Amino acid sequence: MLSRQTAVQNRAVQNCHAWGSFKAVNHCLELGDEHARPQHLRLMLDCAALCAFTADALGRKSQFHNRFAALCAEVCETCEKDCEALGEMEDCVRACRTCAECCRQVSRSDHREVLETASRMAPSSH
Amino acid sequence: MLSRQTAVQNRAVQNCHAWGSFKAVNHCLELGDEHARPQHLRLMLDCAALCAFTADALGRKSQFHNRFAALCAEVCETCEKDCEALGEMEDCVRACRTCAECCRQVSRSDHREVLETASRMAPSSH
Amino acid sequence: MLSRQTAVQNRAVQNCHAWGSFKAVNHCLELGDEHARPQHLRLMLDCAALCAFTADALGRKSQFHNRFAALCAEVCETCEKDCEALGEMEDCVRACRTCAECCRQVSRSDHREVLETASRMAPSSH
Amino acid sequence: MLSRQTAVQNRAVQNCHAWGSFKAVNHCLELGDEHARPQHLRLMLDCAALCAFTADALGRKSQFHNRFAALCAEVCETCEKDCEALGEMEDCVRACRTCAECCRQVSRSDHREVLETASRMAPSSH
Repeated sequence: MLSRQTAVQNRAVQNCHAWGSFKAVNHCLELGDEHARPQHLRLMLDCAALCAFTADALGRKSQFHNRFAALCAEVCETCEKDCEALGEMEDCVRACRTCAECCRQVSRSDHREVLETASRMAPSSH
Repeated sequence: MLSRQTAVQNRAVQNCHAWGSFKAVNHCLELGDEHARPQHLRLMLDCAALCAFTADALGRKSQFHNRFAALCAEVCETCEKDCEALGEMEDCVRACRTCAECCRQVSRSDHREVLETASRMAPSSH
Repeated sequence: MLSRQTAVQNRAVQNCHAWGSFKAVNHCLELGDEHARPQHLRLMLDCAALCAFTADALGRKSQFHNRFAALCAEVCETCEKDCEALGEMEDCVRACRTCAECCRQVSRSDHREVLETASRMAPSSH
Repeated sequence: MLSRQTAVQNRAVQNCHAWGSFKAVNHCLELGDEHARPQHLRLMLDCAALCAFTADALGRKSQFHNRFAALCAEVCETCEKDCEALGEMEDCVRACRTCAECCRQVSRSDHREVLETASRMAPSSH
């Protein structure tokens, strides 16, 4: 049961990486103006890269999973607000919000439980 | 329709990254012996890292998508054979095979078509 | 002058990534036994991946540079201790220690100063 | 001696990653106009990401080192030309050129020799 929960959490983190990388280049850069402001793109790239890192770290049962997840939640929340204020970023807003919620849960999870679960856990995309 | 096909292809590549990273550390290293041979783990890490790179490159409509996909297919096929010969690696065998097939398709795809599709395409996990 | 300091700091972070990735596969896996314990390799991989992420984030003048650097310092210190206790890991011990020190400095740096400097800063390897 | 040559080659690849990531966000995006065209930034990101992947793969003595290096050389040469045509990209032009030359050498190197060398080789930044 937690195994299922963990898989759902991991998938939310990977999903946020995918939307962030995709939208930064194919949407923000192409729209230009405010969407292409360096500071917005830096935040999108921070968020996408941290999600990729975090998903991998959770997948390998990192002893720092709580810490990584807490930081990932914080960056996703910041990115969510920036995307919401900018407009035309609904996919990213949703992906960031879901990822942040999942990361908050992971950040409060018990270490032993996570490690035990991780052994039985399939990658998030199954 | 192609858009849907492209999303399925991207997802197969990300899935192969997820299984490779996950199994290398949580299965191969823990089983030890032949599964933990450096050359097998190098191949698993090559495969996982190349899949992550390729999925991102396809997502950003890279002009080199055919080249990257062709190389990714080759590495996945090699990894698939190594995992099959080793045994107890069914998940990885399957993920590598599906990824290799998808990458072969991408490697033969028409550039213009891919670029047009990419604009409308959602990340693979949706 | 600070520009020079920042370049030195970035370089220490990239250097730690390089040593971690290199030694995990070419030294720890090949030595086997305690060096190839999953938990040690997870820590090496955590450390190497976080250093790569942090170096890129510092390079792109991330607004979260203090936070990322603080976390990177913490992981490097943990990895340093684990490598020291294990023995035959002098290169990694040294790379982790230097990286942790530099990241501590970055984590205390003033935001405005970093952003100004970043504009003039060459990548760390020059 | 070859060990030294290999370290120099690896360093050129990492250096190209560092310059590409750094300049894409801190120079091209901030200059705007032609420098911020999506297709130019895609190429910069392709080049930077492939260099990071290739440097890691060479570092772990990948059996595909020739193939990865050959592809990396090709992408770097394309990026070099694009940057040269654009202007104000001298650092990137130089980093791409040096990296492409080193990757060409690696792509022709003998497998056995590389593997033997890799064992004695320090990461590129020392």
